Amino acid sequence: MTHDCSFLEDLDVAVSFEEGDRTDHSADWGTEGSDRAVVPDAVVRPETTEEVSRVLAAADERGVPVTPYAAGTSLEGNAVPAHAGVSMNLMEMNEVLDVRPDDFQIDVQPGVMGSAVNEAVEGHGLFFPPLPSSGNLSTIGGMIANAASGMQTVKYGEVGDWVLELEAVLADGSVVKAGSKAVKTSSGYDLKHLLVGSEGTLGVVTRATLELEGLPEQIRGGRAIFPTLEDAAEAVFDAVRSGVDVAKIELIDGTSAEIANAYLDTGLPDAPMTFIEFHANHGIEEEIDFCKAIFESHDVQRFEMAEEEDMDTLWQSRKELAFALRAWDPDLEPLQPGDVTVPISKLPEIIAYAKDLEAEYGIPVPCFGHAGDGNVHYTALVEKGNPEARKAGKEVYTRVVEKAIEFGGTATGEHGIGLGKREYMDLEHGEASVEAMRRVKRALDPNDTLNPGKIFPETADGERMRTAEADD
Amino acid sequence: MTHDCSFLEDLDVAVSFEEGDRTDHSADWGTEGSDRAVVPDAVVRPETTEEVSRVLAAADERGVPVTPYAAGTSLEGNAVPAHAGVSMNLMEMNEVLDVRPDDFQIDVQPGVMGSAVNEAVEGHGLFFPPLPSSGNLSTIGGMIANAASGMQTVKYGEVGDWVLELEAVLADGSVVKAGSKAVKTSSGYDLKHLLVGSEGTLGVVTRATLELEGLPEQIRGGRAIFPTLEDAAEAVFDAVRSGVDVAKIELIDGTSAEIANAYLDTGLPDAPMTFIEFHANHGIEEEIDFCKAIFESHDVQRFEMAEEEDMDTLWQSRKELAFALRAWDPDLEPLQPGDVTVPISKLPEIIAYAKDLEAEYGIPVPCFGHAGDGNVHYTALVEKGNPEARKAGKEVYTRVVEKAIEFGGTATGEHGIGLGKREYMDLEHGEASVEAMRRVKRALDPNDTLNPGKIFPETADGERMRTAEADD
Repeated sequence: MTHDCSFLEDLDVAVSFEEGDRTDHSADWGTEGSDRAVVPDAVVRPETTEEVSRVLAAADERGVPVTPYAAGTSLEGNAVPAHAGVSMNLMEMNEVLDVRPDDFQIDVQPGVMGSAVNEAVEGHGLFFPPLPSSGNLSTIGGMIANAASGMQTVKYGEVGDWVLELEAVLADGSVVKAGSKAVKTSSGYDLKHLLVGSEGTLGVVTRATLELEGLPEQIRGGRAIFPTLEDAAEAVFDAVRSGVDVAKIELIDGTSAEIANAYLDTGLPDAPMTFIEFHANHGIEEEIDFCKAIFESHDVQRFEMAEEEDMDTLWQSRKELAFALRAWDPDLEPLQPGDVTVPISKLPEIIAYAKDLEAEYGIPVPCFGHAGDGNVHYTALVEKGNPEARKAGKEVYTRVVEKAIEFGGTATGEHGIGLGKREYMDLEHGEASVEAMRRVKRALDPNDTLNPGKIFPETADGERMRTAEADD
Repeated sequence: MTHDCSFLEDLDVAVSFEEGDRTDHSADWGTEGSDRAVVPDAVVRPETTEEVSRVLAAADERGVPVTPYAAGTSLEGNAVPAHAGVSMNLMEMNEVLDVRPDDFQIDVQPGVMGSAVNEAVEGHGLFFPPLPSSGNLSTIGGMIANAASGMQTVKYGEVGDWVLELEAVLADGSVVKAGSKAVKTSSGYDLKHLLVGSEGTLGVVTRATLELEGLPEQIRGGRAIFPTLEDAAEAVFDAVRSGVDVAKIELIDGTSAEIANAYLDTGLPDAPMTFIEFHANHGIEEEIDFCKAIFESHDVQRFEMAEEEDMDTLWQSRKELAFALRAWDPDLEPLQPGDVTVPISKLPEIIAYAKDLEAEYGIPVPCFGHAGDGNVHYTALVEKGNPEARKAGKEVYTRVVEKAIEFGGTATGEHGIGLGKREYMDLEHGEASVEAMRRVKRALDPNDTLNPGKIFPETADGERMRTAEADD
């Protein structure tokens, strides 16, 4: 599966064939140390759109795969160069190109970190609301590629909702502009949203114009503890249904609470908790009281709110959960985290279903996530080196995905498909829809140059998805 | 350009070859009585997705064009069967299929009117916020096809932002599902947004799941009158930049005011006006005061607000403007209305530019529209039967479009491309982007069956855009 990449040396673009560098580009967070990692044949580091174009045109001509890579924080192998070839590292393109505070707009290159966007605009009283939790470690290009979202999506929407215009390079090296700097347009096909979430399989984003929001004048947040998981899930559902204006509403189940409490020595009960944050320009107390009244009707046991500067302590169990999960029991390892999302009315049911499986399989399955969007993360904790336990954990994972799809939801709210969720594409979308996506892919990338092996269900022979013409 | 459509008789679908019926499907609002109207060879009225699929599969096989048609309220010839063939009238598919108030969701067929959505959900305290001004006369399918938006887009976004899931039939008759009933997803390519705004050239929407919003508890609105157009435009820009939470913010220039005042006998000064509406659950007075303070810093002369039930009187000059324009001067006729949209900081400049052209050409060019989005409608009023005046009016139209694109904006904020704006596609998007759109079109509709002759710049020979294979 290796490819001759010596042509890169003639392109006047920074290129590396060094083994350590190549190995560093073999995996993302979700595939590190796994058998899904693939070492690319070369790593290029373009600095301009023109260089991206030059590499793509040359690789496309030679049938050599190119997989974009940035911070590598994706969780589904999205950035793994599955068919080897070139890993295109975009971290050198990390400039903030322009800030237009009057238009609430910023132009950035793809390698700019999420936190850097906020730093660039906070002096203007602005921020970029839809950042994922990994926002200080991940790039805008990666977020766009993976259709990321985050804790504040419940109020502000997804990353893709805040992208106005993109410049991207297609597989053949042509440079396209998608979207508009106007806040609305009905001109032609929406190539912008087609690129968002395409995981680098349709184009490489080289510039993004993002929309910004005014910083709220009031921020408060805190924690609520419930007697049962059902109470907590119903409370979240009721708050969303009632139109409480929350900026974040997270939920963790009792298993997660137990793990976080032990890791942080919080002294809190091992009970289901929600974490909330409110943003307003005035009248924030009224929203908090509204929320509290709803939570009280679901038997909330503690409802603690703090000013912005003191919120972190109350949020600790949620914020440290990912680390706590890894440190929990040296004999257990967390499997691939699930990322299902369902219509909000099904939130209590999908969580109850996961907990039923926890009992049925006798495997801890902590559940947590962006409950206000109906987004549930869950991870089976299985005995290390026990293939039976692994298999059971994987079964739990799959059954929750299938149930979410049955509820009209999605296998993945925010992590993308990558390598990890290809097998659920047909079930979620139906074969005709996946075939339509395939036709779009073939139209824009007939040689399957860009990030081959992703999103689409695996081909029978594991080969790339090239058109007949390209195979000749 | 006529096609043999007798095959429709064997499909067990309601079909009409009657001349009056066909003529009724030859134009939309924007092309009625013009030389751009084209009479289709047949009209079909499918009642189910299966019937839509059957017609498309049969027509596609025979190379017969099919152009979807609903209420016909589009303004750019979007629904004109430009290459004749079949007009597919979707008004029989007009059922509300399901309302799920707990999820803020409604499932509708494409022929459901915008106002019918609101009627179906208001008992649950919900509404569909992004309706265009024509919402009581136009259908959800048409709004989706044309990427419509409206007065409330400044607060709530465009129609496409409120579409969660679509069922659509592609040219070959295959039925796809796009999007998800979950509020967010990162699963596969975003076919949903690809269909939104594709003007029936990629698929026929047969079912839509729309998201809804809770009705605000407080609604107030009114009118503000300014001494100069510059003051009015700067006031709108300043209000948006300052983050005033308006649900509507419309502007009309002095020319428009003069026309509306004469038509309605308002007794108001012929001065630039803005029309505003506020939605809130609490604290609406604070927002109104905030807005008033900003308007006062731009020398507002009158600032009048009313409760919801009394707002209409204050809004009259805006709401009746379209009728007033037609009735203004029997010797003048309004040309095609422009629909440019620019970044909000450029709003004062684009309006000033249009007014400069008004002076330069000596043609009245009333400007109005959804100013809070940077969206300006304008229409040259030219002497009837005077080709020179028509030509000058068209020049004004084009120069404003070119300036908007120069400002990073779009030729069309909400009316779509249709027949009327094809010539600006390359300028706005660049040839490589338009070519990428063309590749998508060919991938999903290789025979150019669906609504041929739209969106893309006219081919040199006026022929359909069929692939080589299809031409054989």
